[in-house]
Amino acid sequence: MHLGRVIGTVVATEKTPNLEGIKFLIVQPLSRDGEPSGRPVVAADAVAMAGPGEMIYFVGSREAAQAMSETFVPIDHAIVGIVDQLHVEPLPKTKRKPKQ
Amino acid sequence: MHLGRVIGTVVATEKTPNLEGIKFLIVQPLSRDGEPSGRPVVAADAVAMAGPGEMIYFVGSREAAQAMSETFVPIDHAIVGIVDQLHVEPLPKTKRKPKQ
Amino acid sequence: MHLGRVIGTVVATEKTPNLEGIKFLIVQPLSRDGEPSGRPVVAADAVAMAGPGEMIYFVGSREAAQAMSETFVPIDHAIVGIVDQLHVEPLPKTKRKPKQ
Amino acid sequence: MHLGRVIGTVVATEKTPNLEGIKFLIVQPLSRDGEPSGRPVVAADAVAMAGPGEMIYFVGSREAAQAMSETFVPIDHAIVGIVDQLHVEPLPKTKRKPKQ
Amino acid sequence: MHLGRVIGTVVATEKTPNLEGIKFLIVQPLSRDGEPSGRPVVAADAVAMAGPGEMIYFVGSREAAQAMSETFVPIDHAIVGIVDQLHVEPLPKTKRKPKQ
Repeated sequence: MHLGRVIGTVVATEKTPNLEGIKFLIVQPLSRDGEPSGRPVVAADAVAMAGPGEMIYFVGSREAAQAMSETFVPIDHAIVGIVDQLHVEPLPKTKRKPKQ
Repeated sequence: MHLGRVIGTVVATEKTPNLEGIKFLIVQPLSRDGEPSGRPVVAADAVAMAGPGEMIYFVGSREAAQAMSETFVPIDHAIVGIVDQLHVEPLPKTKRKPKQ
Repeated sequence: MHLGRVIGTVVATEKTPNLEGIKFLIVQPLSRDGEPSGRPVVAADAVAMAGPGEMIYFVGSREAAQAMSETFVPIDHAIVGIVDQLHVEPLPKTKRKPKQ
Repeated sequence: MHLGRVIGTVVATEKTPNLEGIKFLIVQPLSRDGEPSGRPVVAADAVAMAGPGEMIYFVGSREAAQAMSETFVPIDHAIVGIVDQLHVEPLPKTKRKPKQ
Repeated sequence: MHLGRVIGTVVATEKTPNLEGIKFLIVQPLSRDGEPSGRPVVAADAVAMAGPGEMIYFVGSREAAQAMSETFVPIDHAIVGIVDQLHVEPLPKTKRKPKQ
C-alpha cells in the first residue's frame, strides 16, 4: 500500500454500471516526510469513513478490487485504512556511500 | 483510477481479434492542477460516450478489462467515468517540514 | 495500451519452455509528440505482422497474456495493434495555471 | 521483488475487515548502492519477523497477496524475505557508450 | 518483458515458505543503449541458467509467477530468457519535431 492524503472529491454522472454507488476520493500520494509526491489518484473509499484532509493508506493494482464488497469491478485504487499513528525513522545521517 | 483528458483518436487495421469493435482514445494523464503529466495512454472507451477534450477518469492494469462487456481481453487502460465536477484542495501553504 | 515504435529484435536460445515459438520485438514507448520516452520493452508480437520502424500500440501487465493464443504464459507486454492513423490534439496554448 | 529497508510502523484503527490482524511496516525501497530511492510503501509483513532497520525484499502488485495465509486480501506489497547477504557487482568503469 | 543484466546475488534465511528452493538474482534494468537505468530488482531465475554479467530479459508483475513450475507464489519478477543477440535501431537523427 501507499501513504496518501485525501485532497478532494470527484463527481461523474456517466460511468460504467458496476461503479454505481461507490464513493470516489482524490488522493495525493505522500513522500517519506509527508509531502505531496507524484500525481494524485482517484480511489474508491473502501473504509467508507475517509474524509478530506485525512492521512490514509491505499492499495493499488489488481488487489484494490478485493477491498470492495463486489470484487469484479474496474477499480485499481482503494482506500483501505485511515492512519492513526505513523512512525518513520529519520533518514540516516551517514554521508552517501561511494558507488559500489 | 487516474484523472485524464481525451486528446485524440487512433485507428489500427491490424489488431488482435478480441479488440475488434472496441473504440480506443488517446488519454493524457493530468497532474493535481489539471496540467498534462507523463505519457499519454491508449484507453478503451468503456462509457462509450467520451469525446475529445473531456476530462475523464480511467482505470489501469488488470482491472481495466473488468470495465468491458467481454472481460478476457488484452486491455490495460479503460475510461470508466466522465468527470462532471472536480474539487481538489489547494496545496498546504505550510513550508516544507524538515526531514523526519 | 501505450503507443510505441518497433526498434529492434532479440534472440534468446535459453528461455522458459512456454515462450517457445513466440516472436519478441524491442519496442520504444513514445511521448505525446511521438518522441522516444523511457526504457524500451521486450514485447510479444500478438498481431504477428509488426516490423521494425512501425508505430504500434502495446498492452502491458497481466492483460498482455490475453493477447496470446495460449494465455498462461509469462508475458507482460504484447503488441496488439499496428497504428494506421493517429490524431493527437495540440497541447493547449493557455499558460500554466497557478497551483491550486 | 525489490530491495528495501524497514523504516517505520503504521497504526490504523479504521480499516477494511480483511486486513485485521496483519502487521504493516513502512518500507523504503533501495537503489543499487543501498540508498533510499523513491517513495516508501506500506507492506504486509509476510515473514512475521521483520523489524525496523532490517534490509528485506518485498513483492509488489498482485503477487503480494500470495504471500499471505489468506490470499484474497487487498494487499499489494508484502515483505517475503529478510536479507542475510547481498552481493552486487560494481558499476562498470567503462565510459558511457554513444547512443546507438 | 524488460532487458536487464544480472549484477548480483541475494541470500535470505528467513523467507515465506513458498519461496524455498527458488534462486534469486539481482537484475539491473537497461536503457536503450544498454546502460543501467532505474532501480535493480530481485528476480527469480526461471531459466535456471542465468549468471552474473549476462544480459537477460525478465517479466514483471503478475505474469512472473507463470514462469515458475509452481505458479501460486509471491513472485513479481522472473528471468525468462538469456539474450544471445540483440539488435536495436539507432535513434532517429531527425531533429525533434515541434509539439503537435
